[in-house]
Amino acid sequence: MKREDTIRVLITGGTIDKEYNPVTGELTFTKSHLTNMLNRVRCRAKVVLEEIMLKDSLQMRSEDREEILKKCIDCPEDKIIVTHGTDTMVETAQILGKDLKGKTVVLVGALIPYAFGASDALFNLGCAFSAVQTLQEGVYITMNGKIFSWDRVRKNRESGEFEEI
Amino acid sequence: MKREDTIRVLITGGTIDKEYNPVTGELTFTKSHLTNMLNRVRCRAKVVLEEIMLKDSLQMRSEDREEILKKCIDCPEDKIIVTHGTDTMVETAQILGKDLKGKTVVLVGALIPYAFGASDALFNLGCAFSAVQTLQEGVYITMNGKIFSWDRVRKNRESGEFEEI
Amino acid sequence: MKREDTIRVLITGGTIDKEYNPVTGELTFTKSHLTNMLNRVRCRAKVVLEEIMLKDSLQMRSEDREEILKKCIDCPEDKIIVTHGTDTMVETAQILGKDLKGKTVVLVGALIPYAFGASDALFNLGCAFSAVQTLQEGVYITMNGKIFSWDRVRKNRESGEFEEI
Amino acid sequence: MKREDTIRVLITGGTIDKEYNPVTGELTFTKSHLTNMLNRVRCRAKVVLEEIMLKDSLQMRSEDREEILKKCIDCPEDKIIVTHGTDTMVETAQILGKDLKGKTVVLVGALIPYAFGASDALFNLGCAFSAVQTLQEGVYITMNGKIFSWDRVRKNRESGEFEEI
Repeated sequence: MKREDTIRVLITGGTIDKEYNPVTGELTFTKSHLTNMLNRVRCRAKVVLEEIMLKDSLQMRSEDREEILKKCIDCPEDKIIVTHGTDTMVETAQILGKDLKGKTVVLVGALIPYAFGASDALFNLGCAFSAVQTLQEGVYITMNGKIFSWDRVRKNRESGEFEEI
Repeated sequence: MKREDTIRVLITGGTIDKEYNPVTGELTFTKSHLTNMLNRVRCRAKVVLEEIMLKDSLQMRSEDREEILKKCIDCPEDKIIVTHGTDTMVETAQILGKDLKGKTVVLVGALIPYAFGASDALFNLGCAFSAVQTLQEGVYITMNGKIFSWDRVRKNRESGEFEEI
Repeated sequence: MKREDTIRVLITGGTIDKEYNPVTGELTFTKSHLTNMLNRVRCRAKVVLEEIMLKDSLQMRSEDREEILKKCIDCPEDKIIVTHGTDTMVETAQILGKDLKGKTVVLVGALIPYAFGASDALFNLGCAFSAVQTLQEGVYITMNGKIFSWDRVRKNRESGEFEEI
Repeated sequence: MKREDTIRVLITGGTIDKEYNPVTGELTFTKSHLTNMLNRVRCRAKVVLEEIMLKDSLQMRSEDREEILKKCIDCPEDKIIVTHGTDTMVETAQILGKDLKGKTVVLVGALIPYAFGASDALFNLGCAFSAVQTLQEGVYITMNGKIFSWDRVRKNRESGEFEEI
């Protein structure tokens, strides 16, 4: 393909990393599952994982999005995957899309936690891995088997799915 | 991105679609899981599924590979994913790579059946979905989180993993 | 063992049957998984399934418990499994234990929904199946691999586990 | 119930503990999953696990069955679960049933490995846990949601299921 670049995976939380707490009956974060996921699928792409935060994206404030932007700018890699909650993924993509130049960033998450049966997490992550390795510089979202540019996508609140605008 | 093309998924079998037969204790095919997989992950890319055969790729003969090539040539779509056993995936990729022009074909499979715990199937399929939507014409393999050109890849028999040559 | 009696499974809801709603991010009921569970494990005991309600047991009122009691009394079977949320399982067991005579009733649930990874549902259900077939008349709870009499058990709110008192 | 006795779990292998080897495509043993299974379901019964062997029960010879019998006789516990392949489970049950006195032994296995999707392993194990805690001395098999006495059971080779004779 091309020479093999290292991919930085910035972990910010979201449904993909949520777990069920059997004592409280609530969905919570304990730790990211990204390492387990990549080991399970025998991923051999060069990857650096960095956990920035573990947040429901409805809880993210503008400082959080600024921090994600700063991490994207400051890291040495040009290919970046950002795991992110789906509720405000588009909002973060817009911040990154407006201010980030010269890098390929793919935001990805899941509608169902990786830890639950019938999760879409591994499929979506696979979509992000190929997208980040093939797309020109820019900011993208890979959800529902599709690739969206940051400025032409929204989450449909009724269906939970991402669609072009 | 681009205008949305329909993706044809040609199913040929392989470990990705194998099941455990609890009576015989053997791995067998009963039906493809691709429809279930795409429903589960709420894939909204335009997809046409076509089951050509359900074979262990060690059982494939040159007629089988010719049939796959013919299906790739004859179908109206320019973006094609071929699910395939990993043991002779490279061999089929070479047949396609030499004779197919003007289309993007991505071969993909799994080291562990979709129906088993800890399968890599969904991740690999996600990789194939983004790859087929972004890559220029040519024949590729997406395994182990990487994208390989048909003429620069082999399966390592010791590790089971795909690597560049 | 003995002649084979039919087992009535009364479904009342609880964590065992909860699902994750990917649009709202909440845990909800859509339908019971008991039929799927028993098919999956190739259960060949004679079983009649009856769905009375699908409720979080924190939402159950005394009318609900009276209805469960009435169903236990009125059904023709002497061996009854009641699937139930764990939060008030002991309370329902006490109602049944005080008023029901001549039948073996086993209450069972799960700390993690059947539909999620790492669920305890199938194990607990297996415990209930053997318990209902072997125990003398009375009302019991099978959780955490143990069998509790209705009048000597509590749920530990800290750990989520059932323990003898 | 009764005072709480410790349950000895004697591990001998069988489908319940098999794994898929992605390099060879064969089913093999690497280690027992019993510890993981009991942790996952938060089993709080007193348990001692002992791995005697990890064998496909078709490979078991009379020495192996004698060893299982000897372990049952020699261990200090009166309640014993033996995990075992299903193909010759009845044969081992007969050896134990004829020669073992004063203990409750329950043989159990699975038609589908614990490590695979849709396994019956946890359900069967739950059946064994309640059975060993409630049944009088004797040797039993818990499969397909039923409890069989050692001298009145066979495995149906067509269906893979256990049935009374």
